Amino acid sequence: MAKEERELYTFTKSKELFARATEVIPWGIYGHMSPTLQVPGAFPYYTATAKGCRYTDVDGNEFIDYMCAYGPMILGYNYAPVEEAAAAQQAAANCTNHPAPVMVELAEFLVDLIPVADWAFFAKNGGDVTTYSLLVARAHTGRKKVIMVNKHYHGVAPWCTSLGHGGITPEDHLNMLYVEWNDLEGFEALVKKHRGEIAAFIAQPYHHITYGKQELPAEGYWQGIEKICKEEGIVLILDDVRTGFRLHLGGSNEYFGFKPDLICFCKAIANGHPISACVGRKELMNAASKVLYTGSFWMSAAPMAAALATLKTLKETNGVEKIKRAGTMLMEGLEELGAQYGLEIETSGTPGLPFMHFKDDPDYFLQQTFCAEVTRRGSFFHPHHNWFISTAHEDKDIQETLNHVEAALKAIKNKM
Amino acid sequence: MAKEERELYTFTKSKELFARATEVIPWGIYGHMSPTLQVPGAFPYYTATAKGCRYTDVDGNEFIDYMCAYGPMILGYNYAPVEEAAAAQQAAANCTNHPAPVMVELAEFLVDLIPVADWAFFAKNGGDVTTYSLLVARAHTGRKKVIMVNKHYHGVAPWCTSLGHGGITPEDHLNMLYVEWNDLEGFEALVKKHRGEIAAFIAQPYHHITYGKQELPAEGYWQGIEKICKEEGIVLILDDVRTGFRLHLGGSNEYFGFKPDLICFCKAIANGHPISACVGRKELMNAASKVLYTGSFWMSAAPMAAALATLKTLKETNGVEKIKRAGTMLMEGLEELGAQYGLEIETSGTPGLPFMHFKDDPDYFLQQTFCAEVTRRGSFFHPHHNWFISTAHEDKDIQETLNHVEAALKAIKNKM
Repeated sequence: MAKEERELYTFTKSKELFARATEVIPWGIYGHMSPTLQVPGAFPYYTATAKGCRYTDVDGNEFIDYMCAYGPMILGYNYAPVEEAAAAQQAAANCTNHPAPVMVELAEFLVDLIPVADWAFFAKNGGDVTTYSLLVARAHTGRKKVIMVNKHYHGVAPWCTSLGHGGITPEDHLNMLYVEWNDLEGFEALVKKHRGEIAAFIAQPYHHITYGKQELPAEGYWQGIEKICKEEGIVLILDDVRTGFRLHLGGSNEYFGFKPDLICFCKAIANGHPISACVGRKELMNAASKVLYTGSFWMSAAPMAAALATLKTLKETNGVEKIKRAGTMLMEGLEELGAQYGLEIETSGTPGLPFMHFKDDPDYFLQQTFCAEVTRRGSFFHPHHNWFISTAHEDKDIQETLNHVEAALKAIKNKM
Repeated sequence: MAKEERELYTFTKSKELFARATEVIPWGIYGHMSPTLQVPGAFPYYTATAKGCRYTDVDGNEFIDYMCAYGPMILGYNYAPVEEAAAAQQAAANCTNHPAPVMVELAEFLVDLIPVADWAFFAKNGGDVTTYSLLVARAHTGRKKVIMVNKHYHGVAPWCTSLGHGGITPEDHLNMLYVEWNDLEGFEALVKKHRGEIAAFIAQPYHHITYGKQELPAEGYWQGIEKICKEEGIVLILDDVRTGFRLHLGGSNEYFGFKPDLICFCKAIANGHPISACVGRKELMNAASKVLYTGSFWMSAAPMAAALATLKTLKETNGVEKIKRAGTMLMEGLEELGAQYGLEIETSGTPGLPFMHFKDDPDYFLQQTFCAEVTRRGSFFHPHHNWFISTAHEDKDIQETLNHVEAALKAIKNKM
């Protein structure tokens, strides 16, 4: 034991830098990257370098990465063809008075790639386009109310942030209605109750809440939603910000077999370069033109060039299949090793966005301990948030991680 | 005349590309860059390359630029020290699972640079931080209502977008109250009427509406606002997104002599790289920590490195003074030439963000014609939106533009 313990990572410089940060930044690191969402002191806080599926923190610890920047990284960090495309466009022109031609090329590419897309709109944040999709739906229908699924994450705009978080008022939610995930009957009842008032239904393709087990759509769920939306003139919005391009290049709806009216993308669309997109059906293009929506950097060209290079690479190399293979190997390996060490592991989600739980771990203590132990050995496992897989995860990387998993399970067993 | 007319720019390729765009992008080019906001066909629509204070459109026309990407460009396009800092950080690590150390350095630099700043928060859009500032103010005061100035632009969130634009509902404005610009008495009356209910007052440092003449704060206006806010426990928010770093590096409030509680920055902060910031007083840091606010790319390191390089350059080279000199030369030259050709020109605003009107031009027809004529000769003059000056505008560039101005005035006179 002594030998192995000496090799475990420590996070001294991360902690020092974080202490400095808390003096000048609210919460030090805010939002989804906040260390308070992990086990304090057991995870790195600051990145020094990143390449492929690995990164090194400020203490010099190297990790095989299973968060992929919480989604944006899909081809590996600093993937050369994407960086070269972005740098070439940056050297020509990035943020100027007008868009660059690449904006038109990217829109045409998306329209070609995504079956439901007749047009595309670009912004920066995922939340820019989820809010935009509501505005388009309201402009299209002349209705105000929007149904969302309880605990689905659509960004940080007040309409989708719960009361209790700082600054949110009840008035922010006056036009929002809520259903539970996978509750088709509840959805139908809500639509009946508010017939003619509902502009849109917005949801993620499946349920991946923090801490919880990921839940895929029940058989017939999305098809039932699609049918009701069509009958009732409700705009069906797919929030594919988190999931997009890891399940299917044509939108995660193609993976689950349904057709939304609008799809929101962000995260993986440009392998970490800042851009989001909303694509939609022709019928909604007129309404989309009536929405006043813009931002200082939304027409910037370098992230558009990065998006085009990312999507072309994913298409030409069958990236989705590669991700599926790596994610499946990880999920199967976790379950096998858990069984072998008598700490049964259940995986959930999809291979591109897997997650895991211990079967007997009601307070997540084992999960937290386990993810910290794996992380200290060189594979970054987030204890509470679903993970992400990239095309840069090769079999040898997954195998190395499974070695970390086995060592962590042994260490936990030894302490029990 | 024949000789000169042959040299005027045309925009054939811009128009062709725009026609393609309208097939796959709502409005073709949306928002503030929409060609419909200019004179159709008389301005370029797409940028090919940009360097210094000049850019070339897709038709090969070169322009001396007076929009600076609507503000973001402040040191010249592709300013080497900024691009090198961004590229070096991008090559190390940009968008990963954690911030990079540069996030702490940038926050510390802002706290040092900006007198009212005890902390800094980073996002992508200007609108991200204006909305954030409202959430912080509400969390701090436990109050809901916010006063804004009629026609001030704070982004595209529903709370600050007028009814009539697609998708905006009356419910979006339930907690908003409105005053006219420079109306201190109206502000006082509104505060009295809603005593104890008002969380914040948000405003731009001065009035620069589209089409209209820019109006500076009246003598004592900001000092009166500051006094009332202090007495009534109202959080004073300065939206310095448009103006920031062109009037004063410590916030435009330093230029006008008052102290807000929160300042929102974006646009020029990183010379075109995508980042926004909200800085605030210590007293508000606890409330800021209670706000759930984050985004996929908000912790990305390359734009932070670009911001640090931009602000250091502006500080070390006295960039504000350089901008003031160039803007003053332009404003004075415009007024002199207008007088000389009997088409009296009045400039307004500040040298860093100047604008102009013809004294006798009630329907803006002369303004539109004039700006198109100047643009066709090689200086991009927006007809309806205030302009921006950068440190890359040298005397010789301003002089070249004044030559374009003189030729345009002559051409207009000849046609009258």
